[in-house]
Amino acid sequence: MARWEPGARERLQAAALELYAARGFEQTTAADIAQAAGLTERSFFRYFADKREVLFDGQALFQQGILDGVAAAPTGASAVDTVASGLRAIASFFPGDRRPYSRLRQRIIGAHPELQERELLKMASLSEGIATVLRARGIPEPQATLAAETGVTAFGVAFRQWIAEGEERSLTDIERDVLGELRSLMTAVN
Amino acid sequence: MARWEPGARERLQAAALELYAARGFEQTTAADIAQAAGLTERSFFRYFADKREVLFDGQALFQQGILDGVAAAPTGASAVDTVASGLRAIASFFPGDRRPYSRLRQRIIGAHPELQERELLKMASLSEGIATVLRARGIPEPQATLAAETGVTAFGVAFRQWIAEGEERSLTDIERDVLGELRSLMTAVN
Repeated sequence: MARWEPGARERLQAAALELYAARGFEQTTAADIAQAAGLTERSFFRYFADKREVLFDGQALFQQGILDGVAAAPTGASAVDTVASGLRAIASFFPGDRRPYSRLRQRIIGAHPELQERELLKMASLSEGIATVLRARGIPEPQATLAAETGVTAFGVAFRQWIAEGEERSLTDIERDVLGELRSLMTAVN
Repeated sequence: MARWEPGARERLQAAALELYAARGFEQTTAADIAQAAGLTERSFFRYFADKREVLFDGQALFQQGILDGVAAAPTGASAVDTVASGLRAIASFFPGDRRPYSRLRQRIIGAHPELQERELLKMASLSEGIATVLRARGIPEPQATLAAETGVTAFGVAFRQWIAEGEERSLTDIERDVLGELRSLMTAVN
């Protein structure tokens, strides 16, 4: 039976992020990360399947957070308002003090196509998850997929703005502004 | 100097698609594809870097087709109308008789996460390319990125509809309908 190591997962994540940023993702091994966290390589693999997964550990919770928010929208809300309810719900996962972590994580992902690919696949799966909930709420295709993908686009743009250097607004406020921009864009006559 | 083999590229692509569909992507090697096309493995690698790339060969032309269409939009057109001009331009790359090829290709990609990842990365790069052209035309952020990503979403939804069994409308017509749906979605009050 595996020994319980208090805070091991978080220590491994912090150590991984630091090493990826300092010496590069390719140049860092699972053994390096474990050592920096004061743990064994075997411990590393108790928590993570590989060194990519350290960066995507919160993805299941993140996805569930959005889907719960979508499901909690009032009956009869429009497709876009339903998705917006998911975006508002997930904003609470990203309090201001998480900004430096998120910024560093995104910088590492942006620098490595193999990490970008994995992130894109996870966002595509999020989009499909949202569309499934929308269809279950009676929103037909193609509206369900369009609203889901547009919502994920809005989240992505808002999130990149949230981690921009010097940005101080909350993610909730930025999401609201981005959705407003999207509405104006789609209704602009010229 | 490499011997010129008439139609070699197209023969390799057709053979690859057939083998991927019949026996699976993992179970097919570059040598198998070359043999089925009546060519040597060396010929295969003269045309394609690996067996994934056979499926993404037209991507550069596709991307350029959209970007040319975006650049050709009248000055002063709205961000979304500018992107719509790119979508209209690319529809001519997909005449009705290409539908069976596109349908088969998409089925193979959809069944393999590693191919999906590559496709998503190429679509993300298309989106960035469009946003760059929009910014050069004076459309500021976040509007440029929102319009670009929304356009790519609309294209994706229209394209999946175009290759659906039994669908007979042209891609141009479907794109127009999908953009119309998007506009209605974003303006729905309830």
